Amino acid sequence: MRAARFYDRKDIRVEDIPEPELKPGTVAIDVAWCGICGSDLHEYLEGPLFIPAAGHPHPISGESAPVVMGHEFSGTITALGEGVDDLEVGQSVVVEPYIIGGDVDTGPGQSYQLSKDMNFIGLGGRGGGLSEKIVVERRWVHPVGDIPLDEAALIEPLSVAHHAFVRSGAAAGQTALVGGAGPIGLLTAAILKAEGLTVYVSELSEARKEKARSTGVADEILDPRDGDVAERVRELTGDTGTDVAFECSSVPVVLDTLIAAVRPGGVIVNVSIWGHKPEVDLPSIVLKEIDLRGTIGYSNDHPATIELVRSGKIDLKPFITSRIGLDEVVSGGIEQLINNNEQHVKIIVNPRA
Amino acid sequence: MRAARFYDRKDIRVEDIPEPELKPGTVAIDVAWCGICGSDLHEYLEGPLFIPAAGHPHPISGESAPVVMGHEFSGTITALGEGVDDLEVGQSVVVEPYIIGGDVDTGPGQSYQLSKDMNFIGLGGRGGGLSEKIVVERRWVHPVGDIPLDEAALIEPLSVAHHAFVRSGAAAGQTALVGGAGPIGLLTAAILKAEGLTVYVSELSEARKEKARSTGVADEILDPRDGDVAERVRELTGDTGTDVAFECSSVPVVLDTLIAAVRPGGVIVNVSIWGHKPEVDLPSIVLKEIDLRGTIGYSNDHPATIELVRSGKIDLKPFITSRIGLDEVVSGGIEQLINNNEQHVKIIVNPRA
Ligand SMILES: NC(=O)c1ccc[n+]([C@@H]2O[C@H](COP(=O)([O-])OP(=O)(O)OC[C@H]3O[C@@H](n4cnc5c(N)ncnc54)[C@H](O)[C@@H]3O)[C@@H](O)[C@H]2O)c1
Ligand SMILES: NC(=O)c1ccc[n+]([C@@H]2O[C@H](COP(=O)([O-])OP(=O)(O)OC[C@H]3O[C@@H](n4cnc5c(N)ncnc54)[C@H](O)[C@@H]3O)[C@@H](O)[C@H]2O)c1
Repeated sequence: MRAARFYDRKDIRVEDIPEPELKPGTVAIDVAWCGICGSDLHEYLEGPLFIPAAGHPHPISGESAPVVMGHEFSGTITALGEGVDDLEVGQSVVVEPYIIGGDVDTGPGQSYQLSKDMNFIGLGGRGGGLSEKIVVERRWVHPVGDIPLDEAALIEPLSVAHHAFVRSGAAAGQTALVGGAGPIGLLTAAILKAEGLTVYVSELSEARKEKARSTGVADEILDPRDGDVAERVRELTGDTGTDVAFECSSVPVVLDTLIAAVRPGGVIVNVSIWGHKPEVDLPSIVLKEIDLRGTIGYSNDHPATIELVRSGKIDLKPFITSRIGLDEVVSGGIEQLINNNEQHVKIIVNPRA
Repeated sequence: MRAARFYDRKDIRVEDIPEPELKPGTVAIDVAWCGICGSDLHEYLEGPLFIPAAGHPHPISGESAPVVMGHEFSGTITALGEGVDDLEVGQSVVVEPYIIGGDVDTGPGQSYQLSKDMNFIGLGGRGGGLSEKIVVERRWVHPVGDIPLDEAALIEPLSVAHHAFVRSGAAAGQTALVGGAGPIGLLTAAILKAEGLTVYVSELSEARKEKARSTGVADEILDPRDGDVAERVRELTGDTGTDVAFECSSVPVVLDTLIAAVRPGGVIVNVSIWGHKPEVDLPSIVLKEIDLRGTIGYSNDHPATIELVRSGKIDLKPFITSRIGLDEVVSGGIEQLINNNEQHVKIIVNPRA
């Protein structure tokens, strides 16, 4: 079968590899669509990061580069391994793409994403969504009902946003500020809106402001060039500030704005990944008793996330900005995102086209 | 009556001022002992900070320098204003030294310390503990039963520590790391120990390590010069890290250590006040899903704090390192702390001596 494999920085190859084998407790899936994620760009430009470099096998998967890429994917079940009796061939599914130690409790309420040596299918081994077929442990397969398979490919990043929402402890009727409206910021806004919050979004890029507007995920879109965002948020919230805020830009000045814009006792969830240690306005965090919370991946978020989409509370279609075949994954996918990031939200790849 | 008043930076004068007047709803107190706090040193060296400068009256108290200093004090009730019928003349009390707007709800569960223009008695006006007498609104007076009045003067900083504990959400049986064993770090450790946690303290100063040892507030005392503190904490906690940690030093490297030493999903409470915006290890806060929480002052912490001391769970005596009269407040108090900080925990002042 055909697959896109990461060999090394700037060396991703589309090639023929053996099909994966069905084993007891696993599920065979024909991949329909696979999204390209910001972290795929980082692997391409600066990697290997999450990907185990050639000769340095990952402690859980035992694999190292070359590895199949792609962790945001949907597909159709083609076969069930021995002992898997609660799924059906032909079902539409998505994969929660974790590589997690066999001794880790992945049950309800468990933060298994924080377990030792956690990695992702499509980065750390065990195949990936940028291939025609994949075989995955039953635990990580989630049926999506009648959600179209193209939209379903966006459930993985939407689960990141859902987990950030859960981490915030926010509830319907509250107010939120989202800093940065890239894919993660837009999907975070979508979750917050669907959960009944009033959502303010701060963004510089015209294209992304327009996307926030046309998708209806924001009640107000604020551009820092039009005046102090924190001040305007305080005005919009009756001189108090928002209950929660989400850092989705990895830009220090955005974090400063969020600290100034949340109410005393408010919560900021930092979703972005930082490549350095930024200066943080700790004086204000102390005096306002702010909670600054990290969030990574998801844990038991997929069912609720899928239900938000299945029930029609979130429409993922408008966030798909391009569809390509496997051969174009670098030129029409990764490099397109590097050069025209603002014009895109999600580029999805059909590995059978 | 005699009082120590702040006029300006390095200008604190002990002088005769009129006695305060008993009004309806207030309580008259003869001050017994008043502690000197780190923030008093900051006012002396770099102020006015919390203190409203001469000619710039505080929006709630309406007062500006000169103001009476001292916010960590105990005393005896000498008279009750009209309508105060749940206290008695002769009772030992401490004061929760807030200046808070009249429209703020200060009831149970309210975070009144975060209200607009909050300030402190003994900094923002309304008298202070560095005077023979004070008159205080009933709301802020807490009876201390038979706790000796010298120890009772330490209930204010102990309430800061109690509030930090409450902010952490920690529970008996958990593990904690306290970074810095100055007065605030030592009292935080004392609260954690009394609440049933296992407590590790990191400290550089020999004198303070000795104080942590002799008071029994720490299960282990770690010196960063003896090897990586986070690594040793992980060893002590079965390769996981502590459940909670408390930043009590305002030293960036200590915050880094706490981030490395808490377990994934752990909580760090930042108690220290920062004069600048430090670089923070946000990458680790994200990947470990750490909660970094600010804490300021206390809100409804005094009753529980008093009960910990009254019941004998915390012995405050060993934290009193010097007793002086009002005339010595600068030479034997503030300047003593500036020059010999490590040798002291609390210097307490008898304003009638
Ligand atoms: N925590 C997790 O599990 C997780 C998962 C996926 C991605 N991420 C991270 O989330 C972050 C966001 O991802 P993305 O793909 O949306 O990134 P992105 O770079 O596409 O989006 C960032 C957005 O911030 C905007 N921005 C920049 N400066 C701004 C300013 N001053 N004011 C307002 N907006 C500003 C940019 O215009 C851009 O639209 C990244 O750091 C990514 O690594 C985290
Ligand atoms: N949040 C609040 O409401 C509140 C209230 C009162 C005080 N505070 C703040 O709490 C902080 C602590 O107050 P304090 O009076 O105890 O201060 P302090 O300066 O006496 O104590 C700090 C301690 O940290 C130690 N230290 C320094 N570098 C270290 C290192 N690398 N490793 C380990 N220990 C190290 C010092 O030796 C010292 O003992 C201050 O910033 C103060 O302003 C906050």
